[in-house]
Amino acid sequence: MKKLINNPEVVVEEMMQGIVLAYPQYVRKLDCGNVLVRKDAPCVDKVALVSGGGSGHEPAHGGYVGKGMLDAAVAGAVFTSPTPDQVYEAIKAVAGDKGVLLIIKNYTGDVMNFEMAKEMAEMEGIRVESVVVNDDVAVENSTWTTGRRGIAGTVFVHKIAGAAAEAGEDLDKVKEVAEKVIANVRSMGMALTPCIVPAAGKPNFTLGENEMEIGMGIHGEPGTHREELKPADDITTHLMSKILEDMNLSHGDEVAVMVNGLGATPLMELFIVNRKVHELLNESGVKVYKTFVGEFMTSMEMAGCSVSLLKLDDELKALLDAPSDTPGFKVL
Amino acid sequence: MKKLINNPEVVVEEMMQGIVLAYPQYVRKLDCGNVLVRKDAPCVDKVALVSGGGSGHEPAHGGYVGKGMLDAAVAGAVFTSPTPDQVYEAIKAVAGDKGVLLIIKNYTGDVMNFEMAKEMAEMEGIRVESVVVNDDVAVENSTWTTGRRGIAGTVFVHKIAGAAAEAGEDLDKVKEVAEKVIANVRSMGMALTPCIVPAAGKPNFTLGENEMEIGMGIHGEPGTHREELKPADDITTHLMSKILEDMNLSHGDEVAVMVNGLGATPLMELFIVNRKVHELLNESGVKVYKTFVGEFMTSMEMAGCSVSLLKLDDELKALLDAPSDTPGFKVL
Repeated sequence: MKKLINNPEVVVEEMMQGIVLAYPQYVRKLDCGNVLVRKDAPCVDKVALVSGGGSGHEPAHGGYVGKGMLDAAVAGAVFTSPTPDQVYEAIKAVAGDKGVLLIIKNYTGDVMNFEMAKEMAEMEGIRVESVVVNDDVAVENSTWTTGRRGIAGTVFVHKIAGAAAEAGEDLDKVKEVAEKVIANVRSMGMALTPCIVPAAGKPNFTLGENEMEIGMGIHGEPGTHREELKPADDITTHLMSKILEDMNLSHGDEVAVMVNGLGATPLMELFIVNRKVHELLNESGVKVYKTFVGEFMTSMEMAGCSVSLLKLDDELKALLDAPSDTPGFKVL
Repeated sequence: MKKLINNPEVVVEEMMQGIVLAYPQYVRKLDCGNVLVRKDAPCVDKVALVSGGGSGHEPAHGGYVGKGMLDAAVAGAVFTSPTPDQVYEAIKAVAGDKGVLLIIKNYTGDVMNFEMAKEMAEMEGIRVESVVVNDDVAVENSTWTTGRRGIAGTVFVHKIAGAAAEAGEDLDKVKEVAEKVIANVRSMGMALTPCIVPAAGKPNFTLGENEMEIGMGIHGEPGTHREELKPADDITTHLMSKILEDMNLSHGDEVAVMVNGLGATPLMELFIVNRKVHELLNESGVKVYKTFVGEFMTSMEMAGCSVSLLKLDDELKALLDAPSDTPGFKVL
């Protein structure tokens, strides 16, 4: 295991310390555990947004805490759901008068623990709503999922619901906007190599020298199939065909594109994938409103990528364009 | 070679197409070759900044074209200097009345070709100045260098000279500021794994399963030595001791920190390195003014990192904080 770490048992704690030292202008850490909140929490006169999940997906989720996105990010152990207590502490630390929206990626443990925290907070009189993101079109059920998994499309939910909250919308409206993003975003990924959970010390799966996995989850969950490595254009065409099959896009529709690296994939390769994504959309008469290429929802040092498309209307466009200032996602 | 590419011979061309499709709001590509310029080039009433080098270091340099940073980025083949013609075309495309500053990383080919382009442009009556960045304290001469190599600290030169240019300073002043950054920035890196130049198809060096290289260059040039993999804190302490030895920092001085991933290193690990960087600076009584953690100057899918420190004064702080809006580096 070749990693820049000290002790596999404390990677999340040491990472959190490193994040807070890097970004004191954005975040502080709660004393009770691995929870990052906005420096100026609790929220005043805005809905508070709380998200999180297992660690290993950086910059998700701590990198999205800041103006116009999240108010708190809860970090579980690597690839492990945060506990209900952690989420509950996050809710209490950020909740203002306008209530709290939980943005949960669809993994059984995450959903269970975030919902348990919601109940705990509600018993204290805090109004909490939740949404579950399930953008991954690859597989219907999976190792840790009933239904579809939540992957990189979640970042669009953070951004857009975050803009609505920052604009002062009430909890019902912020939740409605988040649900609208969830209804309109679709993603699919693939992996060239596995990654190594530090505490395990060995790869979470193996792939042959000339083999890739299509539809791979962000924790190494199996995808739809394995096959021989193909040219980037062929891979992109396959991912796009699965995504487009599942979306109701017509000639003239507008989308936001996210080409997301899983951790070890150079930007060079992501741009080559992006080139083909645009070519295919252009052929379908679908307009690209805005493109995001980079690492947004990773799987530590996994090599591979995912593509996400978000169908836009005027409301979503305005919220996507609204300023955000977080370590991992800035819109001027 | 597991890469998301189509044909190794055209990776740079296809990447450039992917960049322009992703960021039409920032850049356009010159017809004459792999040169990206600001969408609204040529410059009006500001000094134009031109940088670049071999490809494979993304987001450098194309990702830094935009408001408050570069006006043009010239992309050579992977790990290969751009030609004088390319640089000359870049200069001609962006030059306004206030002249052009070339920001060159210290590699023999880059220096030679940028200087040749400078002469060609001067013969056409364009005023051109140049600076050479040599922030890497690891080795004095190297495979492709006389003197020290230019690495991630170059991004601070882009940012700070870019802010001075955007503020309307004249060419002498912009050059003076760039020289000031160069005089005050030091970096050093290390690698856990090599990378593969697509056209070569095999790793540019090899490292044992439990071995790392200290002082490695961003093209896989040998560093100071190889040794057994150590904990992140030990590695960071070594890099920092070499950097600090070479800087004239006193108690109370302020620095900007950049912890740069070489391509395949997860943010988790970079934050663990950052934690130790801050601890060491704190012990020395040096204050951290601002921290940047991410991938700024990569070596495709190489795993490893570099640390850069920039000693600041009030002028440099103000320019570092000035707004920049580029795909790869945004300051609000």
